[in-house]
Amino acid sequence: MDWPKGVSGLSYGGDYNPEQWPEEVWDDDVMLMREAGVNLVSVGVFSWARLEPRQGEYDFDWLDTVLGKLHDGGIGVNLATPTASPPPWFTLAHPGALNTRPDGVRQVHGSRDTYDICAPAYREASRTIAAKLAERYADHPALAMWHVHNEYGSATFSAHAERAFRQWLQTKYETLDALNAAWWGSFWSQHYSDWEQILAPRATQYLANPAHELDFKRFTSDAMLEHYKEQRDILRAANPDVPITTNFVFGQWVPVDHWKWASEVDVVAFDSYPSAPDERAEQQSALHADLSRSWAGGGDWLLMEQAAGTLHSKDGRIAKAPGRMARHSMMHISRGSKGAMFFQWRAGRGGAEQWHSALLPHAGKNTRVFREVAELGNTLPGIAHTVEAPVETDVAILWSPESWWATGGGAHLPGPVDYLENVAQIHRVLRDRGVVADFVAPEGDLSKYTTVIAPTTYVLSRAGAENLRWFTAGGGRLVASYLTGAVDEHCQVWLDGYLGGMTDLFGIRVTEHLPQAAGEPRALWNFGAAERFCELVELRGAQCVTQYATGDVIENQPAVTVNPFGEGEAWYVSCKLVDDAWDRLFEELKLSGPGRPGLDVVDRGPWRFIINHTDKEAQVGHVIVPGGSWAVDRKPE
Amino acid sequence: MDWPKGVSGLSYGGDYNPEQWPEEVWDDDVMLMREAGVNLVSVGVFSWARLEPRQGEYDFDWLDTVLGKLHDGGIGVNLATPTASPPPWFTLAHPGALNTRPDGVRQVHGSRDTYDICAPAYREASRTIAAKLAERYADHPALAMWHVHNEYGSATFSAHAERAFRQWLQTKYETLDALNAAWWGSFWSQHYSDWEQILAPRATQYLANPAHELDFKRFTSDAMLEHYKEQRDILRAANPDVPITTNFVFGQWVPVDHWKWASEVDVVAFDSYPSAPDERAEQQSALHADLSRSWAGGGDWLLMEQAAGTLHSKDGRIAKAPGRMARHSMMHISRGSKGAMFFQWRAGRGGAEQWHSALLPHAGKNTRVFREVAELGNTLPGIAHTVEAPVETDVAILWSPESWWATGGGAHLPGPVDYLENVAQIHRVLRDRGVVADFVAPEGDLSKYTTVIAPTTYVLSRAGAENLRWFTAGGGRLVASYLTGAVDEHCQVWLDGYLGGMTDLFGIRVTEHLPQAAGEPRALWNFGAAERFCELVELRGAQCVTQYATGDVIENQPAVTVNPFGEGEAWYVSCKLVDDAWDRLFEELKLSGPGRPGLDVVDRGPWRFIINHTDKEAQVGHVIVPGGSWAVDRKPE
Amino acid sequence: MDWPKGVSGLSYGGDYNPEQWPEEVWDDDVMLMREAGVNLVSVGVFSWARLEPRQGEYDFDWLDTVLGKLHDGGIGVNLATPTASPPPWFTLAHPGALNTRPDGVRQVHGSRDTYDICAPAYREASRTIAAKLAERYADHPALAMWHVHNEYGSATFSAHAERAFRQWLQTKYETLDALNAAWWGSFWSQHYSDWEQILAPRATQYLANPAHELDFKRFTSDAMLEHYKEQRDILRAANPDVPITTNFVFGQWVPVDHWKWASEVDVVAFDSYPSAPDERAEQQSALHADLSRSWAGGGDWLLMEQAAGTLHSKDGRIAKAPGRMARHSMMHISRGSKGAMFFQWRAGRGGAEQWHSALLPHAGKNTRVFREVAELGNTLPGIAHTVEAPVETDVAILWSPESWWATGGGAHLPGPVDYLENVAQIHRVLRDRGVVADFVAPEGDLSKYTTVIAPTTYVLSRAGAENLRWFTAGGGRLVASYLTGAVDEHCQVWLDGYLGGMTDLFGIRVTEHLPQAAGEPRALWNFGAAERFCELVELRGAQCVTQYATGDVIENQPAVTVNPFGEGEAWYVSCKLVDDAWDRLFEELKLSGPGRPGLDVVDRGPWRFIINHTDKEAQVGHVIVPGGSWAVDRKPE
Repeated sequence: MDWPKGVSGLSYGGDYNPEQWPEEVWDDDVMLMREAGVNLVSVGVFSWARLEPRQGEYDFDWLDTVLGKLHDGGIGVNLATPTASPPPWFTLAHPGALNTRPDGVRQVHGSRDTYDICAPAYREASRTIAAKLAERYADHPALAMWHVHNEYGSATFSAHAERAFRQWLQTKYETLDALNAAWWGSFWSQHYSDWEQILAPRATQYLANPAHELDFKRFTSDAMLEHYKEQRDILRAANPDVPITTNFVFGQWVPVDHWKWASEVDVVAFDSYPSAPDERAEQQSALHADLSRSWAGGGDWLLMEQAAGTLHSKDGRIAKAPGRMARHSMMHISRGSKGAMFFQWRAGRGGAEQWHSALLPHAGKNTRVFREVAELGNTLPGIAHTVEAPVETDVAILWSPESWWATGGGAHLPGPVDYLENVAQIHRVLRDRGVVADFVAPEGDLSKYTTVIAPTTYVLSRAGAENLRWFTAGGGRLVASYLTGAVDEHCQVWLDGYLGGMTDLFGIRVTEHLPQAAGEPRALWNFGAAERFCELVELRGAQCVTQYATGDVIENQPAVTVNPFGEGEAWYVSCKLVDDAWDRLFEELKLSGPGRPGLDVVDRGPWRFIINHTDKEAQVGHVIVPGGSWAVDRKPE
Repeated sequence: MDWPKGVSGLSYGGDYNPEQWPEEVWDDDVMLMREAGVNLVSVGVFSWARLEPRQGEYDFDWLDTVLGKLHDGGIGVNLATPTASPPPWFTLAHPGALNTRPDGVRQVHGSRDTYDICAPAYREASRTIAAKLAERYADHPALAMWHVHNEYGSATFSAHAERAFRQWLQTKYETLDALNAAWWGSFWSQHYSDWEQILAPRATQYLANPAHELDFKRFTSDAMLEHYKEQRDILRAANPDVPITTNFVFGQWVPVDHWKWASEVDVVAFDSYPSAPDERAEQQSALHADLSRSWAGGGDWLLMEQAAGTLHSKDGRIAKAPGRMARHSMMHISRGSKGAMFFQWRAGRGGAEQWHSALLPHAGKNTRVFREVAELGNTLPGIAHTVEAPVETDVAILWSPESWWATGGGAHLPGPVDYLENVAQIHRVLRDRGVVADFVAPEGDLSKYTTVIAPTTYVLSRAGAENLRWFTAGGGRLVASYLTGAVDEHCQVWLDGYLGGMTDLFGIRVTEHLPQAAGEPRALWNFGAAERFCELVELRGAQCVTQYATGDVIENQPAVTVNPFGEGEAWYVSCKLVDDAWDRLFEELKLSGPGRPGLDVVDRGPWRFIINHTDKEAQVGHVIVPGGSWAVDRKPE
Repeated sequence: MDWPKGVSGLSYGGDYNPEQWPEEVWDDDVMLMREAGVNLVSVGVFSWARLEPRQGEYDFDWLDTVLGKLHDGGIGVNLATPTASPPPWFTLAHPGALNTRPDGVRQVHGSRDTYDICAPAYREASRTIAAKLAERYADHPALAMWHVHNEYGSATFSAHAERAFRQWLQTKYETLDALNAAWWGSFWSQHYSDWEQILAPRATQYLANPAHELDFKRFTSDAMLEHYKEQRDILRAANPDVPITTNFVFGQWVPVDHWKWASEVDVVAFDSYPSAPDERAEQQSALHADLSRSWAGGGDWLLMEQAAGTLHSKDGRIAKAPGRMARHSMMHISRGSKGAMFFQWRAGRGGAEQWHSALLPHAGKNTRVFREVAELGNTLPGIAHTVEAPVETDVAILWSPESWWATGGGAHLPGPVDYLENVAQIHRVLRDRGVVADFVAPEGDLSKYTTVIAPTTYVLSRAGAENLRWFTAGGGRLVASYLTGAVDEHCQVWLDGYLGGMTDLFGIRVTEHLPQAAGEPRALWNFGAAERFCELVELRGAQCVTQYATGDVIENQPAVTVNPFGEGEAWYVSCKLVDDAWDRLFEELKLSGPGRPGLDVVDRGPWRFIINHTDKEAQVGHVIVPGGSWAVDRKPE
């Protein structure tokens, strides 16, 4: 499906909340949007109270006016259903439809996202308002796309959730025996003798059951997806030609399996908010973009939100230096985004996010930020020809949300593990070597790739293990790192050597996990060092690439191994390597590309994007890019 | 009104809890009080259970005896209403009258301050016990002052509070339209269509509405004030000649607007508990004293509590070195306190504060602490003649509790901001330069001052902005620092340049906030450095005093500006300066006095107080003060 | 009573959970146990759901089979009552029988230990399942010991607990007057006029009452003990010849007075989980062992759980280096344990503790860990002759759980105090000097000892004070450190000099506590240094051993004193000494033994255990012990 409907080239714009401003501002908005090159705005994301001020009383006049003005201005509308923020009247009428924390506290309105995704009353109200919007706007000429809800991710541990969770479990397991077996219910007397006994993983005395927790995360993702699909189907029925999406958000608190969701949206849309002030922001941006493209199956996707002026780190906001907003935008576009969108158009005067940076700052158009915004917006049409070209690579990194969930929070693990950091480390070392990587699910299609890297893929299902085996047997090069295949899809340990049961594939057995104290790196012979986590590996046919040079148990034991398997080979890294050691390994694997540290060089079909994050001029082929700037050129033959 | 009634000279003493001790101790107490120079004690602060052991059963005999003994000993009584700690029988009878946390947990008795300030049953019980005390003691010859309640500050988020909050809001806004506009209710669908929908800012899913939170803090301050006034009016009716007060306490958890309260008490009383082991304790003491004097309108006030022997810091208690207690007491007296009071007279044997240091330690009178206490107590009459003289200064610092509230807690801000530290920084740099400063509310009377400094006065109301404009136009020198006037009284952004809308006053526009990463100071040309927060300033008539020497966006942009306005001038500091830079600026402004670092020199009318915090002898004029000591002399002509 | 019944020599084995595995594994288990030298396993610790899948439906067949197989294999069974983990059907049927947090949140099942120890329904269900097990297995030939419950320690703050607490208080105090006096109820109006007013120390507004909190901890210990005794009596009635125990666990969150419990178990059993990666793990192991032996009255005891492969520190798990598991085991055996048990036999596939290390790892028998386990297991019979011999010493350290409780958590103290660290410090300095120490309760039997050390024994009852006085008068050498005897059994301050009222015993008065800022050590003349806490001491007959060399108030004041008293002498250390200073003092006291840092030398009757934790060979007498190894030899005459 072509998207956004009626908007050509690259999409540029952001969330637009005219209902917060007097009508006299609206014309000014459209004029300034045009000045800034904006061609798409997201309208109505949190407008429920304004659209339905009292239950059953609707007011669409203002929205009619806004859509008319935008359409007249040549600006497409990404029209949202407002269900991410039910109005106060709803929560007063349905106190049971508010989300409940694990400790049983039912939250109240006063922010956004105060709803219980499993509450029937909330579901019904959501369908009703979506239907009203569909009825009125499905054929509106301004309508370019539907934007369902906003940043799905708010979990609930209510009685509603428990009832729905039990139904989900019954569908999945059919019998309590199967559930008890999957959850290893004999431990700590957690054997269930009636479905009614099963609860959400609420506040309990001590450690929780990991299989229970993992299933609840999966269920929550599915429950939210069901809410999405109910709205999507209503919107689609009203006009099958309008593309439909929702904006993904990313964080360990987000119980959403984007692999599964991606097949239900017409457009993968992503909100990218890097959380570090330094170059990690660029690393995160690249990671976000590559994940989004991969969720989209390699096709194009849309950067739906970013912040124009600031980064939000744990130390508070940090201003983006000149050009950084443009470079971030170009990073996303080069990696497959069909545009660059922002939250939000006009900086709010009040409300919780009044200080969220915007395209049009509080101080108005005569500001640095607006000038940079307009400059980029007026540049983008010049590279619109790059939009259709795909990003191609033969290297993939496994992305396993279940491994992230299962190793996060309070889980008891074999030792210190930071799954996201392990994935991000591979991604950044490859990026610094100029390699653009895709991500792929453990059970996903690996046929496009020659190299697949599995960083600490802790949860490895039977299907995932078979997929990796098939890939390697068929000639692929598999590189897995420590704890990969530690447990299966039920969080049960793969016995007799871990590795997802594939000791033959790797030609080794892992016999023991050896977490190491902080501050005690373990040198590898000629290969950098490991830190915090090592494993004891028993060779069963594999070759040893390098050994540990130090460490009580591991001294001279295999650290990195390689095993020929079928037409391919399986590498295993039994420890948490430092960046340099990964670089050393990728050198061995001959993985490199035209980029280098501080310099993104990404090819999109015949086009080459060069983004120079340094403050020095850089030359790539014949192209010279000034410090802090970017360029698009033809990819050299 | 003269206070404390019947107590001449400087008040000296502390909380006295005879009901915790057998009667045979009481005579010893009075004797030792006389030995220590004590002339005023606070009695009954938490005695409710002893005064009314069961609902409606009163026992005043012990109090009669105590007041008699004290009066016979020539010691005045600051008699408290005991409402800060309802007895267990009350909380058992009225579980709904206990305070509720934001997460809905209703707290139970077992400490103190377990009451719901908005609960009708608690209000009624408070009035009743106050009336009983008034009836019995209003004309007692020992009675020197009434001490209502104790350290108001315990908020509640109960249904009682919500009901009262709605009434308060209806009085303030009259219509829901006005409230929705003030709270920027269109953001995140927070538009209210019925007053019943409005809640306290309880646990919610994500960021709260800043205007909602600020109004709730104001409401809580007013609700507590109403509780105070109910008791005050009862006490006053019984004998209009007895002064009435309550002891203020200070902390961001305290939702009390002391500017507003000060006009309702006959005496501003303050409990000063510095929270650092090092010289910041002296800085905090000076800040407390100058705030108290300012709340009292420049008149005298009373240090109602301090600790004799220890400081309580985040690392636990720390002993006060010899002489430090006396120096702190003299700091307060020099800055306007009509005495030095303590918590408490006799160290408790049991209870939660058994280790709170006291005038009379556990080990009795043969102790270092009691010796120092008695020495000071016997010295004070010698300086009683200084009491009536006022502290005078022509420099004021704005103190905006609303700016503190609005920038505290979980608020989303333009960047890292620590309001109290910013105020304290100005105060300590001035103090190190020998300048004694008053504080003043943004809307307060500025006519006494030639220089007014507004440190990060984030919330600036329309009236406040007008006040500053009028002050400057009339010849005043205004110095404001970054984020001043960022938002108005509804937490809504001042558009088109911030600065409380007064871009003409300052001759600049602030076009962008530029929070900086930690550990990256930004040098100013010839002016020290800034850290963490800078702003982009556009000159519109102002002169540039200095520019940033480094920083992506800000390099060579104005850092400090000055603009002539009317008869005066408006300075603007667009960043968080380090101490040295403020010192540099004050040098430029010719703000200096006779004190210096480690040496307080404060004039109270014709008297000069010199307090030497160093361990070396200091000379000021002809007066030589040994290290660690203090002196009072005539101010040189 | 001889224990474990029918198991000779040293016990070796661990928790065994066959119900988590298919039956075909069970034979393999018994075979591998025999291979590893296992002779005792704990069965059924959390098997309630499997034994009673639905209320009143029992399934013992699997347990019959397991016990039969174990018995056939010559392995004794330590059979548990499963009450530490009620099944989901129980918690669904009795939601009121789940434990309640201080904030009122009632926890749900999903882990273990979700029960309310005071709930009648839980008590009854516990008795019923215990009786069923007693009925079926009391005379089973495999039965070596009963293991009641598991790691008592989960407190509850429910209405059930409050009701039971009131009964406990009525028994203790008889009258409310006595309770109000003991709790210093006049402070903050905490005077109770009806027993119904008394609550558990639940969430309250500010500081709690320390006497209230301490009594609630005592009550909780007693309530749990009552639950234990109910089961014990049922089991004992069924067969008086079977020893009964429960496994103690250690931590400040555990409200269990092990001195009191020890007299109710036939065997003191302890679960030792050191929590540091470095040598502190050995220090903690020695501390655990000496405490356990002391609780057992100097007789033998049993290390019931430890981890074979990893340590769990705050930084996550850390692998135990080769030999460390054996050395830890031998540390416990040398210090009186009649064996070395582990959690658990076979590493779990699923559940919250799937990564808890085990005797038989996930990777099976061909693993380093299993090899070390089997090596140790096959070595132990060779030292079985050492079992009956007692560990003897004439040095004791006071262990006061009440002092730990009263100084922990949020209590307001005279300054920074870490009670456990202070005890551990004495223990480790003595251990480094080769001295094995017992622990003893303040009111315990001191007649065996020539030296008794009382580190910061904050809570000192009247009986405890008399005990120390009697000990010293009779010729003992008492060494007490700062804050000893600060408060009595009601947390009330010992007035007029602290020291438990024994100013005559020590020949001094403590007149003031002088907590010091962090990072400011106070040198002592020729005696190392103190840090964080000093006291001001007034000599009243004692000699001064050394003075403070620095510090405002304390300069040249007594730091360490000694006073002859009766036939003995009382030393007092008025500060928190650094390790070196304690070493210096113990040198003065001529406390030393054959061990040294890194080398445990412990005599058990005629046998000498030498454990070498260093990586270098060590010689002790004629015995040479390789680095990382251990030896048992005859003690030299």
